[in-house]
Amino acid sequence: MRILTIPLLTLTLALSLAAVADPLPSWKDTPAKQRITDFVDAVTTEGSEDFVSTPERIAVFDNDGALWVEQPMYTQLAFVLDRLAEMASEHPEWQEQQLFKAALEGDKQALGEAGMEGLMTLLMATHAGMTSAEFAELARDWIGAARHPRFERPYTELVYQPMLELLEYLRENGFKAYIVSGGGIAFMRPWTEQVYGIPPEQVIGSQIELAYEVRDGEPVIVRESEIAFIDDKAGKPVGIQRHIGRRPVLAFGNSDGDYQMLEWTTAGPGARLGLLLHHDDSEREYAYDRESHVGRLDRGLNDAADKGWQIISMKRDWRAVFPNDSPGDSQ
Amino acid sequence: MRILTIPLLTLTLALSLAAVADPLPSWKDTPAKQRITDFVDAVTTEGSEDFVSTPERIAVFDNDGALWVEQPMYTQLAFVLDRLAEMASEHPEWQEQQLFKAALEGDKQALGEAGMEGLMTLLMATHAGMTSAEFAELARDWIGAARHPRFERPYTELVYQPMLELLEYLRENGFKAYIVSGGGIAFMRPWTEQVYGIPPEQVIGSQIELAYEVRDGEPVIVRESEIAFIDDKAGKPVGIQRHIGRRPVLAFGNSDGDYQMLEWTTAGPGARLGLLLHHDDSEREYAYDRESHVGRLDRGLNDAADKGWQIISMKRDWRAVFPNDSPGDSQ
Repeated sequence: MRILTIPLLTLTLALSLAAVADPLPSWKDTPAKQRITDFVDAVTTEGSEDFVSTPERIAVFDNDGALWVEQPMYTQLAFVLDRLAEMASEHPEWQEQQLFKAALEGDKQALGEAGMEGLMTLLMATHAGMTSAEFAELARDWIGAARHPRFERPYTELVYQPMLELLEYLRENGFKAYIVSGGGIAFMRPWTEQVYGIPPEQVIGSQIELAYEVRDGEPVIVRESEIAFIDDKAGKPVGIQRHIGRRPVLAFGNSDGDYQMLEWTTAGPGARLGLLLHHDDSEREYAYDRESHVGRLDRGLNDAADKGWQIISMKRDWRAVFPNDSPGDSQ
Repeated sequence: MRILTIPLLTLTLALSLAAVADPLPSWKDTPAKQRITDFVDAVTTEGSEDFVSTPERIAVFDNDGALWVEQPMYTQLAFVLDRLAEMASEHPEWQEQQLFKAALEGDKQALGEAGMEGLMTLLMATHAGMTSAEFAELARDWIGAARHPRFERPYTELVYQPMLELLEYLRENGFKAYIVSGGGIAFMRPWTEQVYGIPPEQVIGSQIELAYEVRDGEPVIVRESEIAFIDDKAGKPVGIQRHIGRRPVLAFGNSDGDYQMLEWTTAGPGARLGLLLHHDDSEREYAYDRESHVGRLDRGLNDAADKGWQIISMKRDWRAVFPNDSPGDSQ
């Protein structure tokens, strides 16, 4: 029975704290913040016409550019390039293959020209051919050691403080938050629980094929060189249906890759909230939208007003960006 | 803050009840029950060498033959046959197709001979070509109306009372229970929360392809005529990895389709529990194992002792089988 003591204490503590403190201190007191807290109040107030029962309080979040930095390149692509460099000595043949040579030399133009097909080849070379446990260890080790080129900090410190607060605020209000990312599910799961408080079973992402095998009497799950599912654009509502089986009531994204996820979420009956983060803060982070190759936001900006989606300006709506920023930095 | 009142009361109530009552009253006081309660005590006792933290307390359950009756045919196959009968008037061409004719006439021998390929054809004819929401309504309506041919009760009353108690006992002890079934995920999700207390996001099963579309301005998820994933045998550990991303500590099955799920679960480090239900009770339910076409249990019986898996005898270990049985029925 001892195990029940802790939740009781935690609940009591949460109650006391919630009564006195602003749950979103890194959000400025703007209409965007108001929209969020109004929504949460409405769906959690019993008797309200917008009330949503706890099990139906599903919130979905994109990861790259929504929960953490995605410039100057997706973090997972930095992982791919580092892996290739590490593996290169075992693969002398790569020196004669244009694509691998470009990747090893960091030739971004050649990589860009290689397109999605080239990217998939590099992904398979680094992400398949080992067990799930081995890959999780590689991802965990890398994320602990790698540094962002501009901010010179671990990527896990380049998560957005206002988003950590939003996740915690939603949890306190009975929401279950999922990551729904175009990134690899197996790349994210080793660290999302520690960094975001989102456990592996609440992470949805792109996937390669898996196979169960017994090797020398030991069961393993092997990662195979074939794409099983791309969790991007129209794939996001499909990934949500596969994993959750309920339509979310809140969706948070930042690029046109999230368009269908917001569309699916906000077209449901009852109170719904669609949120789009606009990266317009080149000083504290980055400024990019319609023309960007990474995290392009074009159609979303065009349609947000019609769809009732709230645009969040990083520059105007966020007091702090990263956890180590002083909240007063840009006031 | 009002929403926090209910969990507090529930916790207090659970505390009081747990202190006085046997959490598994429909289980006889046999070594099988002892094995289960010893395991739960060990993994939930802080300081015990077998202690497992709450987030890692993942338990996986087969559905057909493990949580509810699977004889004389899988319930989902009864749904397929009823759907075909309902759709037949719109498909006069079926009268000239041997497979459909056999299904409509209930010719079990011909259906058996049509094999997996035939079954898939019937499945696609009844399970694809509509939206996910439409299919969920069909499944929900059917499960509310259909009756089991022998017991003449709704299938949802032919769930096993000892398993309902086990699910509740595990939940009270911080476990998260998943269904991992060869059956269709979309067939199960509309009713598992109400019947087992297992929400849709904790249901893993076989899946067909899904596509996101906007029809006349309304977003829908469409069920397509192609198998995406078979969650059976070696597919079960793969389904677990895809959906949960953690290795379970407890697995419960009843057929050789569950063999790899138990193997994967119990080969992990630390305390693990593998359980196999043996259907040996023709009086209260059914008796079948090595020779059965439905729910065959052969390899599992051979290897259980070596693997340390606990065989549960329906006849000797269960006081009651179904929720409406009097617990004293077979004492």
